[in-house]
Amino acid sequence: MSMILHDLAGADPDLRFSPYCWRSRFALAHKGLPVETVPWRFSDRHAIAFSGQAKVPVLRDEGTVVSDSWAIAGYLEDLVPVPPLFGGPVGRAHALFLNGWADSVMVGGIARLIVRDLLDAIDPADRDYFRASREARFGMSLEAVQDGREDRVLAFRESLLPIRLVLRQQAWLGGAAPSYADHIVAGTLMWPRCASRFEILTPDDPIAVWFDRVLGLYGGLGHAATRV
Amino acid sequence: MSMILHDLAGADPDLRFSPYCWRSRFALAHKGLPVETVPWRFSDRHAIAFSGQAKVPVLRDEGTVVSDSWAIAGYLEDLVPVPPLFGGPVGRAHALFLNGWADSVMVGGIARLIVRDLLDAIDPADRDYFRASREARFGMSLEAVQDGREDRVLAFRESLLPIRLVLRQQAWLGGAAPSYADHIVAGTLMWPRCASRFEILTPDDPIAVWFDRVLGLYGGLGHAATRV
Repeated sequence: MSMILHDLAGADPDLRFSPYCWRSRFALAHKGLPVETVPWRFSDRHAIAFSGQAKVPVLRDEGTVVSDSWAIAGYLEDLVPVPPLFGGPVGRAHALFLNGWADSVMVGGIARLIVRDLLDAIDPADRDYFRASREARFGMSLEAVQDGREDRVLAFRESLLPIRLVLRQQAWLGGAAPSYADHIVAGTLMWPRCASRFEILTPDDPIAVWFDRVLGLYGGLGHAATRV
Repeated sequence: MSMILHDLAGADPDLRFSPYCWRSRFALAHKGLPVETVPWRFSDRHAIAFSGQAKVPVLRDEGTVVSDSWAIAGYLEDLVPVPPLFGGPVGRAHALFLNGWADSVMVGGIARLIVRDLLDAIDPADRDYFRASREARFGMSLEAVQDGREDRVLAFRESLLPIRLVLRQQAWLGGAAPSYADHIVAGTLMWPRCASRFEILTPDDPIAVWFDRVLGLYGGLGHAATRV
């Protein structure tokens, strides 16, 4: 039986854009594990109540339930060691730094560039909740958060310099082959790619070139994703 | 025969503060390899000319010469696999991201907080070169670069959030035991610790608590280091 992934969906149920769900999608594909994704909306709290928490991704594998993209990656690595996501405990420990960096620098930076676009992408039933919760977090309207992004995106692009330094020396963040490090960063970039038309990266950025290669992995999983 | 490490020294030859040399010092100690450190100044270009480049650290191991802290770590890992610095190729690839992050975010951020202090710490013969080269890089006087640091240090501390996110989940950046990831960050923090009296971290910062544990490793190597 396929595993089941509860996956954030937009107004269009085929629109999947969660940066955390995409990390899990790539990790599952990396392991060659088929998965059935179930569209989930912020208003569907009851649908994942069985997981004991309120966020996606949630993975169900027969009787096992795993929430949180980091925990899901560890679960998959322990279940199917090859091809590796982490290549051992030190590789896993080191990937946690990249995970924390992506969660703070990338997710925080991208949110400030596309949060108003997200409002249009998500399901109408989610919009009041989304606006209220995000405006409380930022202390201003979604429109004000996103204002001036054409200028601010330059600093965001600069903040991605550590990725460029790695790609000068190796083809993938995982070295000679993709690893969960690639899934963390590429999964995060799927968020603006799918939910917004704003250009986060310039096409000549080495990160954009690498991202395009990730989009082609696993039978073109990323390339095939629905975009707004 | 001990290995020899050419190591940046200050006006006081016992003052060693290079963030890159400290990464190598910790890595050598991690492997239990004795090393003789040779003080080097910016004006001693001829002393490391044999390495074919102009920066320290330079490691000499009998007939082998290795420059650049990242290359030195890889050399040591291949030479003495246990205890691991990287734990395999994926762990090494993932550590390269942390290395790039430290080189840009940490070294760049700390330089803007202590670069004028460094002028006082280095050898008098190095000062004209140091001031001219760094002022050209920053496009302003060393005094202007360092100005306002009491306020700016707050943003620098925030930029270290990814480290704190890791330390919430594991004792070391390397996981259950220190790895080269710990040496990268701690080596970088040895720079302001040894060459400046400016407080980069507040004592209650989880990073400061972790750093103190690193200082106690390898017989208290870090704790024993000379400070200005």
